[in-house]
Amino acid sequence: MKEYIPMIEEALAAYIPRGDYGEQRLIDAAEYSLKLPGKRVRPALTLAFCELCGGEVEKALPYACAVEMIHTYSLIHDDLPCMDNDDYRRGQPSNHKVYGEDIALLAGDALQSMAYAAMLSDQAVQAVGAENAAKAAKILAEKSGLLGMVGGQTIDLMSEGKKPDLDTLRVMDEKKTACLIEAACMMGCICAGADDNRIHAAERYAHAVGLAFQIVDDILDVTSTTDELGKPVGSDRDNEKSTYVALMGIEKCRQLADELTDEAIGALSAFDGDTKPLADFARALANRKK
Amino acid sequence: MKEYIPMIEEALAAYIPRGDYGEQRLIDAAEYSLKLPGKRVRPALTLAFCELCGGEVEKALPYACAVEMIHTYSLIHDDLPCMDNDDYRRGQPSNHKVYGEDIALLAGDALQSMAYAAMLSDQAVQAVGAENAAKAAKILAEKSGLLGMVGGQTIDLMSEGKKPDLDTLRVMDEKKTACLIEAACMMGCICAGADDNRIHAAERYAHAVGLAFQIVDDILDVTSTTDELGKPVGSDRDNEKSTYVALMGIEKCRQLADELTDEAIGALSAFDGDTKPLADFARALANRKK
Repeated sequence: MKEYIPMIEEALAAYIPRGDYGEQRLIDAAEYSLKLPGKRVRPALTLAFCELCGGEVEKALPYACAVEMIHTYSLIHDDLPCMDNDDYRRGQPSNHKVYGEDIALLAGDALQSMAYAAMLSDQAVQAVGAENAAKAAKILAEKSGLLGMVGGQTIDLMSEGKKPDLDTLRVMDEKKTACLIEAACMMGCICAGADDNRIHAAERYAHAVGLAFQIVDDILDVTSTTDELGKPVGSDRDNEKSTYVALMGIEKCRQLADELTDEAIGALSAFDGDTKPLADFARALANRKK
Repeated sequence: MKEYIPMIEEALAAYIPRGDYGEQRLIDAAEYSLKLPGKRVRPALTLAFCELCGGEVEKALPYACAVEMIHTYSLIHDDLPCMDNDDYRRGQPSNHKVYGEDIALLAGDALQSMAYAAMLSDQAVQAVGAENAAKAAKILAEKSGLLGMVGGQTIDLMSEGKKPDLDTLRVMDEKKTACLIEAACMMGCICAGADDNRIHAAERYAHAVGLAFQIVDDILDVTSTTDELGKPVGSDRDNEKSTYVALMGIEKCRQLADELTDEAIGALSAFDGDTKPLADFARALANRKK
């Protein structure tokens, strides 16, 4: 999966325009967050699923970049003082600490529109066909919107200090985290012209991987050391956040993460191609130490 | 043009989903701003240009709604404390005064994705064809994004206290105001399957109408009474804002507004249908008293 990263970062950089007038600061702000070092998990999944379905990865690049633009906008807005009020992101000052809250807000807004402009550019539409371009962009819009990612962020906000139960926690993570990963994987299949059967298998894989990711996150917050994790451990407990570990205990969490990883790998049986990289990715995510 | 309003408001309301979980507050917030009484100028223009090009207005409704969703998200974010910090919008408490800054931010984000989900829904794509759906959504993404509306908002922010010259003022208004009106008019033509010649004529009409609108706004801020305008007059001068009136004087402003209105009406000659409603609309905008 890592082999895709240089290609993704090159493509992302190419979407940064030159400002013709006074909007250069907005462009700088969008570029700053888009170029922060990251694992590029979501765009890599888009490319991997495109390749698995026999498509040319280049054709999926605009869609891979789009999902990273959406992810990036959500991080910028998440860090704002009226949300999580985080001063750092990926080890660097968060967008509003560098550019101010007003520009950070607008940079997030502009990254969202940039995602759709990328997916629906003449070149992108020609590469995958108008039907598939529209279908992919619709899925990203739905999965990132009111009933998807942004809905999940809302559930998170609304359950602050309320200790949500396991069902609420699960729905929140499905929306907040899994939905965007689902869009990433589904769009990869769509770019390759895959049928609905495979698109839905990609959705199941992403759903399981997304939930496992959150559960492992909770486990690491308890079991890891600050050195290993690169951020303070025990922050969930200190913030009195409801977590899988607090609700189920570590043992059951481990077991659930393993089950979800098996579920993800099982979903890959719908594909004929080489599924090993995606199976390995699911396993690596579940067994990660940070 | 007013005849379109009930149809638009009905269609907008139909896009408000029911939340399956804790995101109901987000949905309420999005609905609140979407339903604030407004003139619905942009979506009415989408429908009017669709009709002028011989298309069925129903087919253009998702695109009309989308442009209103984008407009609404921009108003919600504009009113936030880190931006203009406005407590009122269209005579009602602004979104963050009712729902809090965090939910208002997310409601704006969700309205933006809702716009693309509306334009790229299976039904919308079937009605206008995938090529046209992708083309329309791309134009809205570009006109509302980094080099369009959001870029214009940035130029506005960056020129605070700087007394921009006439060129900067014009570019700012082209981006901040005219771009979204251009998208509205162009999308109407695209929904009717119009050729590029007519799409560009619609863009020219919208560009002139958008600029004239801003200039008349500046004139009214000086010449109107608070009663007529429904908001305090002289606020631009009090806020030390650079305006067309301050830079050119009222007489030249009036003249420029008239020239732009003639330009808008001239652009309509590219169309065979009944252009009177759109010509009347341009005149009414230039001669409005509030």
